[in-house]
Amino acid sequence: MVKKLLLSLGALSLLFPALSYADDPSAAQLNMGLNALWVMVAAILVLLMQGGFILLESGSTRMKNAGHVAGKTIFTLGLCSLIYWAVGYGFTFGADSSEALNKFIGTGSFFFDPSISAGEGDNYPSTIFFIFQLAFASISLSIAWGGFAERAKLSSYLIFTILFTAVIYPVVAHWIWGGGWLAQDGAQDYAGSTVVHLTGALAAFAATVLLKPRIGKFNKDGSANEILGHNQVFSALSVLLLWVGWFGFNAGSALSVGDGFFGYVAFNTQLGAAGGAVAALLISWLVAGKADITSMLNGALAGLVAITASCAFVAPWAAVVIGLVAGVLVFFSVKFFEKMKVDDPIYALSVHGAAGIWGTLANGIFATQELAEKVGVGQGGLIDTGSWHQLWVQFESVVVCGAYVLAASFLILGVMKLVMGFRVTEEQEIIGLDLSEHGTYGYPEQMKKAQQNL
Amino acid sequence: MVKKLLLSLGALSLLFPALSYADDPSAAQLNMGLNALWVMVAAILVLLMQGGFILLESGSTRMKNAGHVAGKTIFTLGLCSLIYWAVGYGFTFGADSSEALNKFIGTGSFFFDPSISAGEGDNYPSTIFFIFQLAFASISLSIAWGGFAERAKLSSYLIFTILFTAVIYPVVAHWIWGGGWLAQDGAQDYAGSTVVHLTGALAAFAATVLLKPRIGKFNKDGSANEILGHNQVFSALSVLLLWVGWFGFNAGSALSVGDGFFGYVAFNTQLGAAGGAVAALLISWLVAGKADITSMLNGALAGLVAITASCAFVAPWAAVVIGLVAGVLVFFSVKFFEKMKVDDPIYALSVHGAAGIWGTLANGIFATQELAEKVGVGQGGLIDTGSWHQLWVQFESVVVCGAYVLAASFLILGVMKLVMGFRVTEEQEIIGLDLSEHGTYGYPEQMKKAQQNL
Amino acid sequence: MVKKLLLSLGALSLLFPALSYADDPSAAQLNMGLNALWVMVAAILVLLMQGGFILLESGSTRMKNAGHVAGKTIFTLGLCSLIYWAVGYGFTFGADSSEALNKFIGTGSFFFDPSISAGEGDNYPSTIFFIFQLAFASISLSIAWGGFAERAKLSSYLIFTILFTAVIYPVVAHWIWGGGWLAQDGAQDYAGSTVVHLTGALAAFAATVLLKPRIGKFNKDGSANEILGHNQVFSALSVLLLWVGWFGFNAGSALSVGDGFFGYVAFNTQLGAAGGAVAALLISWLVAGKADITSMLNGALAGLVAITASCAFVAPWAAVVIGLVAGVLVFFSVKFFEKMKVDDPIYALSVHGAAGIWGTLANGIFATQELAEKVGVGQGGLIDTGSWHQLWVQFESVVVCGAYVLAASFLILGVMKLVMGFRVTEEQEIIGLDLSEHGTYGYPEQMKKAQQNL
Repeated sequence: MVKKLLLSLGALSLLFPALSYADDPSAAQLNMGLNALWVMVAAILVLLMQGGFILLESGSTRMKNAGHVAGKTIFTLGLCSLIYWAVGYGFTFGADSSEALNKFIGTGSFFFDPSISAGEGDNYPSTIFFIFQLAFASISLSIAWGGFAERAKLSSYLIFTILFTAVIYPVVAHWIWGGGWLAQDGAQDYAGSTVVHLTGALAAFAATVLLKPRIGKFNKDGSANEILGHNQVFSALSVLLLWVGWFGFNAGSALSVGDGFFGYVAFNTQLGAAGGAVAALLISWLVAGKADITSMLNGALAGLVAITASCAFVAPWAAVVIGLVAGVLVFFSVKFFEKMKVDDPIYALSVHGAAGIWGTLANGIFATQELAEKVGVGQGGLIDTGSWHQLWVQFESVVVCGAYVLAASFLILGVMKLVMGFRVTEEQEIIGLDLSEHGTYGYPEQMKKAQQNL
Repeated sequence: MVKKLLLSLGALSLLFPALSYADDPSAAQLNMGLNALWVMVAAILVLLMQGGFILLESGSTRMKNAGHVAGKTIFTLGLCSLIYWAVGYGFTFGADSSEALNKFIGTGSFFFDPSISAGEGDNYPSTIFFIFQLAFASISLSIAWGGFAERAKLSSYLIFTILFTAVIYPVVAHWIWGGGWLAQDGAQDYAGSTVVHLTGALAAFAATVLLKPRIGKFNKDGSANEILGHNQVFSALSVLLLWVGWFGFNAGSALSVGDGFFGYVAFNTQLGAAGGAVAALLISWLVAGKADITSMLNGALAGLVAITASCAFVAPWAAVVIGLVAGVLVFFSVKFFEKMKVDDPIYALSVHGAAGIWGTLANGIFATQELAEKVGVGQGGLIDTGSWHQLWVQFESVVVCGAYVLAASFLILGVMKLVMGFRVTEEQEIIGLDLSEHGTYGYPEQMKKAQQNL
Repeated sequence: MVKKLLLSLGALSLLFPALSYADDPSAAQLNMGLNALWVMVAAILVLLMQGGFILLESGSTRMKNAGHVAGKTIFTLGLCSLIYWAVGYGFTFGADSSEALNKFIGTGSFFFDPSISAGEGDNYPSTIFFIFQLAFASISLSIAWGGFAERAKLSSYLIFTILFTAVIYPVVAHWIWGGGWLAQDGAQDYAGSTVVHLTGALAAFAATVLLKPRIGKFNKDGSANEILGHNQVFSALSVLLLWVGWFGFNAGSALSVGDGFFGYVAFNTQLGAAGGAVAALLISWLVAGKADITSMLNGALAGLVAITASCAFVAPWAAVVIGLVAGVLVFFSVKFFEKMKVDDPIYALSVHGAAGIWGTLANGIFATQELAEKVGVGQGGLIDTGSWHQLWVQFESVVVCGAYVLAASFLILGVMKLVMGFRVTEEQEIIGLDLSEHGTYGYPEQMKKAQQNL
């Protein structure tokens, strides 16, 4: 009988049968399946972006800190997952809060225990929605680490992961995506130029201000020294991984396959990224006489960050313009922060902050009425409608979200600084965090040789 | 006419038309298409995990062996593919064997020549099922290489690839997944904590015992020296790639989109991995005074290995617990094997072996009756049902699979050791396998500098 | 009311609703959705292959050029995207040209402004088709860079990106895939052994001939020196990334999920790659006495390049044979070009050129009538039908496409050489392109140490 069964399966005798419907599935069930599959793929792509951050951050910093910088991404991803499961998801999307409270925060779904499959009328399983949203939270957190780089204690990563995931990110995400008051105002942030990127960047800003610059970054006369990252192959590969993952980030935010609109979102994403890379290359060539690799890579990322808010709301030509402007903006923003004596090793403030603000505001200028209606959020922008309304809403959402994140981050990190100290000692910073925080170099053979040469 | 045609395609004039049904497809055909797509994506993700192994193994070993360690993954993947196509797939899933023989091994489908598309009633095309299963076999093989690292001859990789893929892996896979006797007993191993991970780990164990420790690993007084891997950025990135690929590994094992249950499997996978990373970080911090990167990375992987058997059978809280325990277990397991003077460079015995056993047994404790019925394999575990039955079945499957793999591996590798010699000479090991086995360094510029410094 | 809504969504209160059909979608709409999803995933995989090229090219070259080699991939991808959007796509697939003109080139769809979602009767959204085709164009361009490596000016990358994307690649792509005259003749090139790989390789050939060999590559007596790449871990990982991405490249070219035929394409792809890796390892072992890593990696890639044309047209055993032959061919091809004093740092001429020609011709030998009819292009080959017809068509398509690409590339690059100079100065080449073209080393710490050792 077993043999018969096997043969009837067409030579496949796998134990686990494909879990299927008893009858042929309905159109609604198949549609749910399509959405489930796309959002799952998108979530996986967004998680892959953490590989981009591992390479971006380690490539942009020095060899003595490489193991620490790369390794901390894994454990903060793990811890972020547990905290988001316990409370972060509930604060963002929990449906138990009263209507009044819900303007500000969600409650419910703590220690999220989802149903094992999608129910009737669901557009996708809540399990997959959870993974997608968790991946976004963890990206915002990884952006924040830019401000910690090369001088923060390991313990501060642990504590800030918990607090950022529990009380900083979920509030902004709830306001704009969770049905909170900015959502009700019609704020357009399709995939998170504000929610994910600006939030992470401002947390990085608070950290870098409170930590003070790295030893050797600024001279007594106020001039800045370049502290070069150790591996541009890592940096270039990181940008490619982030670029690829961004299709999950942006086009995944459609949360459905439907009529194929997610392809339009991806199309605009590609144009925005391209604009950023090209503009940054040219501006750095023009201004500095030499095209510098780091500026160009920052440009590609800035194009991606900027188009994140607007990818579903604008025409292709506008996506190109948004990307081009982001590429120029990030180049000057990096120079500005250096002049302000803010030490920003991974360029988080410029790539995710400045470009995040630009991308969010860009909707107020370039969004078309047709697309705003298609997506079902807000209105067309200045060019299409002649109205300043949407630009004002976008401005408002940047200001209030920014203010909340800045206040919360300065408070949390300020208390951490007071209570436990936040920065390693000067000696530890000089020998590097690999040795001082973890006991071995991340590149033991190469660092040993370096020491022998001293 | 061509022009008309082009216009009617909406400006797309691609030569190859989308291969479609003459009529609109039926619900069953669309459902098959959904499953085909998901299993294809999952297979690709599992193949991507080989990139994780390239980085994990080369990052965990020394610069003089890096090209060899990384490069051998590509050719063993190639050779494994040909052998699995020729015989491995047939031994696992071939449907020509008699009912009595089928308890132990499948036959048929050798030199697999599948139909070019899915037939009526198929849940997915057998071509895609083949690629998915091949990817699993190749992962198990890559785990086994952990025991060969930095001292085995290149020729031994060639021969062991053939024999492992032909007669070790397919037997265990047939017993549990191919309709063999453990399947008939109700052994629960959803995505292969036993089939893939324990099998690979025990082959690694046999290899490392027969090869003896690397030169310099243990002192005459029995104490161990740390032989540090050369690149922790590679190691951290490897864990991220494996983590991401694991969604294909685990959630892909649903082999269907259906009602979205594959999302639940992915959800538990994320929680297990997170638990492993966090627990390992904390235990290493607690025990050693310093959180060490390698332990934490091992913890994330151990969480993933452990949840592999149980991801479809347990509640979310149990997934967290399984991950946390795996993270602690792997830390002490590494210390145990070192004390036993077993040299395990990539930690395969602990990450894939100890955690693989734990994950398989965990089903006997945490599986719920509801999920066992949903999946259609075995029963609920101790906590949900109060019955020891499933735990016994799990224990049995670990013991018999483990015994078979150990016996077969020691036999094959033992004969190889006798007949052809298995380990490179002392001189070759000292200059490194890149130069001795392949004629050039994998890092020629850096190694040249190192030599100049001597 | 908000709260009610939230609860009714099953605890999901996301602002952006899943964009769905008002009624349940029809079978045709669901089928479109499946195709859209698969082609989107495939496009993402092909873009991921650029990560493979970043690692392949930087791993195969020297440390002093690593930042330049890796970084230029990002900005040329960006620029290629903008040019392809502006004109390249229109020249390939634009449907406004007359029937006579259309034999040679498409026109229309410039500055492509697609509809935001798929219309009735569309097999997939044109947005996603665009991204997929753009990804192919950018891969062909990245292959061409093989001929530029380690000695071309940065400005030449800029200009050649524009011209290659605008007037070289689109012509060949139109002839074979865009309804041009070779398409009408029945030329079989499923995923681009000719269109993508041979085109890129011949552009690389023109570049490397016009640039002349790198300093130190050939001695005065005509003998060659080996200029080793600096990082074989990068090279091995690159091959894995390319291998994985190739499932998007080949199986994505089905442009549909349909009856699961795309799985058959993927199945053959795996066998071809495997054959190439194994054959190249064995031939290098046999000929040189030592298996060399670079040859083996080239073999895997050659197997993939060769199977690209034929993956949908041949039986599995033929896929294995095509891969095995490609693996042997690439080994001797590399030796041949070195003897011809052609300096080909990334082996583009052999891996993409020789194997691309072999793969295209292989259809004329191995294509089966059944599969040619299934795909709807051309006829069965010599073995299945006994007719030389298809082999002649394949030969013709290689010759005419090759001739066009060679002529156009020599013309464009020759003018560039005359007008602006194309190669950096001897001094710049010796200090490396990182410093001379971009102002900083890509590995600043390691290069500084190297200099201290001088």
